[in-house]
Amino acid sequence: MANVKTAYRTHSCGELRMEQVGQTVTLAGFLENFREVGASLGFAVLRDFYGTTQVVAETEEMVKTIKALNKESTIAVTGVVRERDSKNPKLPTGDIEVVPERIEVLGRCRHNELPFQVNRSREADETQRLKYRYLDLRNPAVKNNIILRCQVVAALRQAMTAQGFMEITTPILTASSPEGARDYLVPSRKHPGKFYALPQAPQQFKQLLMASGFDKYFQIAPCFRDEDARGDRSPGEFYQLDMEMAFAGQEDVFAVLEQVLPPIFAQYGTYNVASEAPFRRISFLEAMDKYGSDKPDLRIDLTLTDATDLLSGCGFGPFEGNTVKAIVVSGFEGTRKQIDGICNEVEVQSGNKAYWFRYDEKGELVGGIAKFVQPIKDQVVSALGLEPGCFVGLTAGKLLTAQKTAGVLRSKLGAFCPNHMDKERYEFCWIVDFPMYEIGEESGLLEFCHNPFSMPNGGLEILKKAASGEVDPLSITAFQYDLVCNGVELSSGAVRNHDPEIMIEAFQLVRLGEDDVKAKFPAMYNAFTYGAPPHAGIAPGVDRMVMLLAGEESIREIIPFPMNKNAQDLMMGAPSVVTQAQLDELNIACTKTEDEE
Amino acid sequence: MANVKTAYRTHSCGELRMEQVGQTVTLAGFLENFREVGASLGFAVLRDFYGTTQVVAETEEMVKTIKALNKESTIAVTGVVRERDSKNPKLPTGDIEVVPERIEVLGRCRHNELPFQVNRSREADETQRLKYRYLDLRNPAVKNNIILRCQVVAALRQAMTAQGFMEITTPILTASSPEGARDYLVPSRKHPGKFYALPQAPQQFKQLLMASGFDKYFQIAPCFRDEDARGDRSPGEFYQLDMEMAFAGQEDVFAVLEQVLPPIFAQYGTYNVASEAPFRRISFLEAMDKYGSDKPDLRIDLTLTDATDLLSGCGFGPFEGNTVKAIVVSGFEGTRKQIDGICNEVEVQSGNKAYWFRYDEKGELVGGIAKFVQPIKDQVVSALGLEPGCFVGLTAGKLLTAQKTAGVLRSKLGAFCPNHMDKERYEFCWIVDFPMYEIGEESGLLEFCHNPFSMPNGGLEILKKAASGEVDPLSITAFQYDLVCNGVELSSGAVRNHDPEIMIEAFQLVRLGEDDVKAKFPAMYNAFTYGAPPHAGIAPGVDRMVMLLAGEESIREIIPFPMNKNAQDLMMGAPSVVTQAQLDELNIACTKTEDEE
Repeated sequence: MANVKTAYRTHSCGELRMEQVGQTVTLAGFLENFREVGASLGFAVLRDFYGTTQVVAETEEMVKTIKALNKESTIAVTGVVRERDSKNPKLPTGDIEVVPERIEVLGRCRHNELPFQVNRSREADETQRLKYRYLDLRNPAVKNNIILRCQVVAALRQAMTAQGFMEITTPILTASSPEGARDYLVPSRKHPGKFYALPQAPQQFKQLLMASGFDKYFQIAPCFRDEDARGDRSPGEFYQLDMEMAFAGQEDVFAVLEQVLPPIFAQYGTYNVASEAPFRRISFLEAMDKYGSDKPDLRIDLTLTDATDLLSGCGFGPFEGNTVKAIVVSGFEGTRKQIDGICNEVEVQSGNKAYWFRYDEKGELVGGIAKFVQPIKDQVVSALGLEPGCFVGLTAGKLLTAQKTAGVLRSKLGAFCPNHMDKERYEFCWIVDFPMYEIGEESGLLEFCHNPFSMPNGGLEILKKAASGEVDPLSITAFQYDLVCNGVELSSGAVRNHDPEIMIEAFQLVRLGEDDVKAKFPAMYNAFTYGAPPHAGIAPGVDRMVMLLAGEESIREIIPFPMNKNAQDLMMGAPSVVTQAQLDELNIACTKTEDEE
Repeated sequence: MANVKTAYRTHSCGELRMEQVGQTVTLAGFLENFREVGASLGFAVLRDFYGTTQVVAETEEMVKTIKALNKESTIAVTGVVRERDSKNPKLPTGDIEVVPERIEVLGRCRHNELPFQVNRSREADETQRLKYRYLDLRNPAVKNNIILRCQVVAALRQAMTAQGFMEITTPILTASSPEGARDYLVPSRKHPGKFYALPQAPQQFKQLLMASGFDKYFQIAPCFRDEDARGDRSPGEFYQLDMEMAFAGQEDVFAVLEQVLPPIFAQYGTYNVASEAPFRRISFLEAMDKYGSDKPDLRIDLTLTDATDLLSGCGFGPFEGNTVKAIVVSGFEGTRKQIDGICNEVEVQSGNKAYWFRYDEKGELVGGIAKFVQPIKDQVVSALGLEPGCFVGLTAGKLLTAQKTAGVLRSKLGAFCPNHMDKERYEFCWIVDFPMYEIGEESGLLEFCHNPFSMPNGGLEILKKAASGEVDPLSITAFQYDLVCNGVELSSGAVRNHDPEIMIEAFQLVRLGEDDVKAKFPAMYNAFTYGAPPHAGIAPGVDRMVMLLAGEESIREIIPFPMNKNAQDLMMGAPSVVTQAQLDELNIACTKTEDEE
């Protein structure tokens, strides 16, 4: 451990053990608590970043001194380390205590009452927590998430560097882009009427770095999107492990993250097992077919079976003329009430109903829609491979609806059945072969499915064949991939389309041309006309990864100074009114102002 | 070295040596050059991030293939590694060449003519370089500065981590602050009429982290100031190695940087020697007195001598009634013309004249103002310790003027006299004991000298004594310090005033009160009333350090995608006009628009 000795202390509050007994030490920290036992006996807890130490006041004067201080004052305590009579094995410093000879007040807390109890701040109202974040963060349970975040980021940097990547920081004041989410704008003082924008991601810059001859780039990159808050998305800024490789393809990107992520997940996560390389590759179509989701949680061993031929004609109305998906759960032990609960949750989440029946221990079809299945019992038992004690969940609708609903049902069943979910691990997979094009729901015409700037599998040739009618454009896949862990999408990535000729061909299929390509990203397009290497990359979200590792549901628990859901920093008072002089200098005016509460 | 094998190459262009001779390899890179020697002989240079390799076309077909390509196209070359007939010892791959069997075009450069020659881009017009930065960066000489920057930043991170510091990222969208430089503002969509500001530095956040119980914080922190460009300051954003320590004082901060910086400077700098710990501590008053500057270049062994008593009455008009400072340069070999040149430069830079005479090899006083000194020759020789061959530079004026002018003269003399400047090294020092207060030039009243939030040496007690008239407030120093290297100020730092009571007392001396303290930094002030640790920190500028290490004069040479002096990104086209819809959504209007050129 690095040296913690400073002008104010000889040791940290987490450091003293039996071997220091007898030494005179000086500790400095926050006065967490003082328990007065008598006029000349009291126990104080001193807390610093590294831990807590018990301080025993044994004189009337010392008790008075400490008693006079408000909790959370900072003090320096000089005294002798003594072995405790009753040790506390839960506390790293629980074998010892310090008997103070001298106490120096370093920073007096002026407040008798705190807005909340530091060590129970997580129970406090979030508005109070965010306003007094400096008190909230003194709570070790809150602080530890931030430490985890810092450790994970440091480990990611180290691992990427070990893989030969170089961290390059790209501009934060840049140009507004027509793509994607809403930009944060920054008025330019020197160029009236013009604006910088904060980058939604360093996507263009990293591709420009590739065109500039850099080879393996990464960056723990701040990204800015003016979007409303969600559970896993903070308003304002978030961080990505942004990476890109020149002269590289999909498998090269996969190989890097397969080396980088599992050790970090295993070391810092609440679970200490993570997938080993290579992660499973699952095509988009297979994922939808087998898991009903393009972000399957592979900790669940359940898969979808197509039961359309088997059941669509069984007489149960909702199955009629629809695709039917089945999930067979062996060794199922839920009650009727629990099953109803699961089906309800599925309906709430997916907007579609789930159905079911059971093949009970006696080999009888019971419950749910059993009576419709009864006439074809043998067929069903055989086709679905049912064994006594099985539960069969069912969904129906058009293909995608049946799949997606079954995907939700699969998650719920996995969460419910410990024997079908190996929960305490991180299961990664790659979803690959996303379709390049789709028929737009509104337009009814061919449109790009995801990112128009991904490289189509088959390159120029396949596009030309599609243009000439030789190939169905809907069958073209893109070198685009998602990294998924435990059912959470950590990132999309792609082999980029670095060739202007292929770009134009790809755009022509959706009735656009070179001008449209140029208009989207002029700098990048220009750069590519000067010769660019094939390149590929990805950008896993740092916040999402840390949430997964910390096991936290709110993104605000893993950010040192988060904004609230209304995009306000309650501690700093941001955003705020500025002076007219500031606006004048920027040549802007406000057309509306918020009513002050 | 990390693996460079990818889908497109087996080796990098900087990797092949004699030991690979005979192997079939695939390289991928930019076609830097092709020299056609005959119909069936030509030499191509293939460049990637790692180096260049010679490719020899030995068939008519191969010559044709390569000839058909524009320079800077990206290609993959598969062929056999062969020992060169005439080796190039200057090139790491100079022992070998690759004889291509197959060439695949990966990214065609569409342009016959480039805006400038890649390998001579540093000679091109800067506007062109910035517009085509992706071509400029392909020049190894340009790229290497960026690599240096990345390596230095990575090394700083590693060294700070080894010292027990934790990197914590602080918000980029925050509140506008009344202090310091001009803020960049960001209109809030959800809160009409209100604005975020980009942080000028994470100063408040790092102090809030200290109040939150964090102990050793650092961050390679992006900082934003809407100021006009200077040689060593980019408009827009710049980076600091921001650090802060809790329960720590000035010497604790010094000890950290004395461990962190010298090895990095010695390893990555153009010079490979750096000061060892401890760096020299020089009080502000001593620095002004001895070096005529609070950022002395200690590579120069010349110092200022006070010659007021000796020379102010010698009859030379400008000395009359003024402070006179002398710099004695032994073994001086400049001509009269060179001396005039130096004196001219001093006058241009400082606005004040420099004077001189020489004590020549024969022991005669000659040149400059020698005739005024002649009458008191013996006194002067003895008082200034002159030896034959000495040059004596002189400045005069009020104390500060004489000092500062002499400081400029000292730099010029150092640069001129190799025997008085040990140039090839990094000489660090700390300037300490800055005055807390000064008499304002305009107001004629007591004012803060630098940062009102630094801790005064002597704390509450000395301030109270000053308030009661027992102590001259001008004699109070602050725990504020500058880190200087080779005459360049890398950073200011301070022990912070963490005690609201001392803050108020410090403000009262300049006729301000608690409300003024609160108004400056409300969140920080509030936090300190809840008990804060004593803390201290500093934030050396990353850009300045890298400039020093690279030996570059323009900050744009050490930033991957810099803005120009007019705060424009010529490649991305930032700042730019945005749509009316964007402005409407942000509830702002432009009151003026730039004329489009």
